[in-house]
Amino acid sequence: MVDTQSSIVHIDVFQPIILCRAMASNAVTATATSIPRSKVLTEDNVFVNLRKMELAMCGPLFIRAREIEKELQKGVEKPFTELTKMNTGDAHAMGQQPITFLRQVLTLTVSPNLLNNPSYPEDAKDRARMILGNCNGGSVGSYSESAGIECVRKHVAQYIQERDGGIPCDYHNIILSNGASIGIKSFLNLFNERLNDKPSGVLIPYPQYPLYSATLTEFGLAQIGYYLDEDNKWSIEVSELERALREIKDACNPRVLAVINPGNPTGQVLTRKNIENVIRFAHKHHLFLLADEVYQDNIYDKDSAFHSFKKVMTEMGEPYSKMELASFMSISKGYIGECGIRGGYAEIINMDPEVMKVLLKSLSAMLCPTVLGQVVMDVVVNPPRPNEPSYEQFLKEKRETLRSLAEKSQLVVDTLNSIPGYKANPPMGAMYAFPRFELPSKAIEAARAKGQEPDVFYAFKLLENTGILMIPGSCFGQIPGTNHFRTTILPQKKKIKTMLEALKQFHIKFLERYS
Amino acid sequence: MVDTQSSIVHIDVFQPIILCRAMASNAVTATATSIPRSKVLTEDNVFVNLRKMELAMCGPLFIRAREIEKELQKGVEKPFTELTKMNTGDAHAMGQQPITFLRQVLTLTVSPNLLNNPSYPEDAKDRARMILGNCNGGSVGSYSESAGIECVRKHVAQYIQERDGGIPCDYHNIILSNGASIGIKSFLNLFNERLNDKPSGVLIPYPQYPLYSATLTEFGLAQIGYYLDEDNKWSIEVSELERALREIKDACNPRVLAVINPGNPTGQVLTRKNIENVIRFAHKHHLFLLADEVYQDNIYDKDSAFHSFKKVMTEMGEPYSKMELASFMSISKGYIGECGIRGGYAEIINMDPEVMKVLLKSLSAMLCPTVLGQVVMDVVVNPPRPNEPSYEQFLKEKRETLRSLAEKSQLVVDTLNSIPGYKANPPMGAMYAFPRFELPSKAIEAARAKGQEPDVFYAFKLLENTGILMIPGSCFGQIPGTNHFRTTILPQKKKIKTMLEALKQFHIKFLERYS
Repeated sequence: MVDTQSSIVHIDVFQPIILCRAMASNAVTATATSIPRSKVLTEDNVFVNLRKMELAMCGPLFIRAREIEKELQKGVEKPFTELTKMNTGDAHAMGQQPITFLRQVLTLTVSPNLLNNPSYPEDAKDRARMILGNCNGGSVGSYSESAGIECVRKHVAQYIQERDGGIPCDYHNIILSNGASIGIKSFLNLFNERLNDKPSGVLIPYPQYPLYSATLTEFGLAQIGYYLDEDNKWSIEVSELERALREIKDACNPRVLAVINPGNPTGQVLTRKNIENVIRFAHKHHLFLLADEVYQDNIYDKDSAFHSFKKVMTEMGEPYSKMELASFMSISKGYIGECGIRGGYAEIINMDPEVMKVLLKSLSAMLCPTVLGQVVMDVVVNPPRPNEPSYEQFLKEKRETLRSLAEKSQLVVDTLNSIPGYKANPPMGAMYAFPRFELPSKAIEAARAKGQEPDVFYAFKLLENTGILMIPGSCFGQIPGTNHFRTTILPQKKKIKTMLEALKQFHIKFLERYS
Repeated sequence: MVDTQSSIVHIDVFQPIILCRAMASNAVTATATSIPRSKVLTEDNVFVNLRKMELAMCGPLFIRAREIEKELQKGVEKPFTELTKMNTGDAHAMGQQPITFLRQVLTLTVSPNLLNNPSYPEDAKDRARMILGNCNGGSVGSYSESAGIECVRKHVAQYIQERDGGIPCDYHNIILSNGASIGIKSFLNLFNERLNDKPSGVLIPYPQYPLYSATLTEFGLAQIGYYLDEDNKWSIEVSELERALREIKDACNPRVLAVINPGNPTGQVLTRKNIENVIRFAHKHHLFLLADEVYQDNIYDKDSAFHSFKKVMTEMGEPYSKMELASFMSISKGYIGECGIRGGYAEIINMDPEVMKVLLKSLSAMLCPTVLGQVVMDVVVNPPRPNEPSYEQFLKEKRETLRSLAEKSQLVVDTLNSIPGYKANPPMGAMYAFPRFELPSKAIEAARAKGQEPDVFYAFKLLENTGILMIPGSCFGQIPGTNHFRTTILPQKKKIKTMLEALKQFHIKFLERYS
């Protein structure tokens, strides 16, 4: 839960007051013939951490957006004809085309009879045959091992090794999942132990991707927010990390440092130097590193490069190279964007082997991640090679998708910076812009009068007047007194231009109204 | 955790002794230059509930099976040439062929370019077009709503309504998931609240499917085991439910009654009368009903029929028809067996709307279930109709698969009953047999000497001597002093015969050895 009004660090703790009300409703022991009784499960006795999660995710804005969508369908008159959803990093929803080779391999694994069809390229067939040969019974309809199909894990390991310039990667450290989110959640669950009657603490960036606040809230883990430095391209300052840790004092046991690189929602790409400093800090304070690196293919800035935490850590040598690290990757981002298919991997290094066993065993209760998501992951990490028939087309599609994303990210940032009172950092990576904007004090007063954060108030007005749905900065965490929103760069260019023009006109009118 | 030795009911509680050891290892605050220090995350400070899960799942037997598999690959001499895995309900792994129509629809949604291909039937194309028309951006690669694609949820609702003879089903009550297991886990998480400083209690059958014991252990919920009546075709006796509840006294707050019908691992199909009695018991004790009905299409006994808890409850009228119920279904079972694709649904009725909101919001942090699993679920609930081109072939494949399963289940039970000291209930439903067998007292002594349950001892000997992997009854829970194992009925007929003959010979030699 991000609570920027009252304090910088917000630690979720049980609210014992809930329990008494819950017991009251549960105490009824009526029989079949007596008066109506309460539900077994009520708002008052449901797992309170799940109820608190609701607060973290800007629910009312989304609920209103859905209502507006239904009103439009019913023909209700509005100043706009459709909702413009700038809220999710969902490339295919915004018209991005899937990679041909990827869908070919997927099709061949679903329909092995097509392996004899001459219209499919041989490299796609080879990939499909190899995967099917490693599926029990030769079918994607059979369970895989809980950590994923061994050959896919091996391909992931090769991919990481190539990415990191030859630093070894052991496939035993690779765990496949139904997307990075559930992978991160399963990992954080390992820390769900109260030591000395205090919860584990997890350092997370502010602004952060709400998966983190939601998961920590569900598990009752302490959230330790460190602010990214907006004036320095959203970098991570060690002094701020130290401040965050110092201020929580003894309220929790800090055990994990989470970093999102490239950043979501902020889009920064960390420098190698910055990563080194973060690693030193984590070592000093004996923290497990969680590197959310799902946007590693989304780098648009020519002067930036993706440096994996594993590579930097390893090249720093001991003791850093021995640190515990979990890095996460997804099929939903990059140039792939196959969000709906659900696939991800974790590479976990230097973990206590006994803990690894516990993790694998805990995953086995859910049987296995979707095999089709594993097939897609295999293509991501094992794409066509230069001597293969699909190589040219694959490369063309990959480059064009990434070029288009880079172009749109520049377009979004430039236009935002042309709006009075707006200021956005230059585009570097990921799929978002996170501009800061100034609001007149009358608007802030109007927001407070409604019990809303000023940027939430602004986002509601934007939605009602233009149909544009943006996520306010306060849902991600921001320095109190500042206003932001996150917008994706994903819609087609023409649509982005229309949207930005509508935003600009709205903002000018908003300033007039509240000046 | 199933603990049949010490007590009938096993309640998982925190073990405070762990905490002290954990703190000791965490207290190290060495710097980069000091002596090597412990890991951040260790066996001693990992979430203890996850560590305890390990115990519930007969881990050592599976680990040994994997070792044997690798030994065989390396050419180690054994009395057998391959492992015979009778342990999982994984139909495709055992050679069952996928339903043609299902794979056609799946293929067309992955490769929409094939929608113009004349070799695909029109009804498959219609299904694919309809689903793609309801995917954002027309792609299965985009996120769906967290509860699933609306049109698929509506088809599920229609399917349930038809199944239950017209009893209304509201699609708002349908939640799609990555399989029934994660659906059940998300549901049970709602009860993860300690009321009056006691955990919620969940009544589960003994024998049970280990998902339940594992999930309850992870959440720290109390497991209240009620024994199924083996002498009465594994029926549920109300007197036994009452005993189970009475014996836990005040150690927890009983809130959920879980029933698996058709049964796993026991294969029974409950009579309507039995279900009515269970519902009355749940009402009397104010329990939320959890009906695990994933085997609803697997009924082999001509005198049995599947009665959904919802139908029976509704037809019983008030107050029973107002009870809270969650029923779960999967694409992994029935005649479909698409385990690897991961898909399931829950129908939750009479739930407090505020709790439903909490559940939906908690799911939204994981974004959405795999869209391809949703596509398969759509085929399961919206199969070809009599006037459609694929109907005849679909029906033929469905009937043949179910006929073959019925035949094999009879074969397994008959052969087991021909082994001296074996006794298996007649086949009724699901995908398993759960025979009881007598062991000589010398074997029991030998097991105890090794610190093993007698049936675990037996399963290890069976594995080492024949390569057959069965899950011992003590992993599912059984009346102390009895011995069982679960075997699937899934392998092809010839393989089943070979396996059963090997089992018989092993058992005879085992009796000689320990008599």
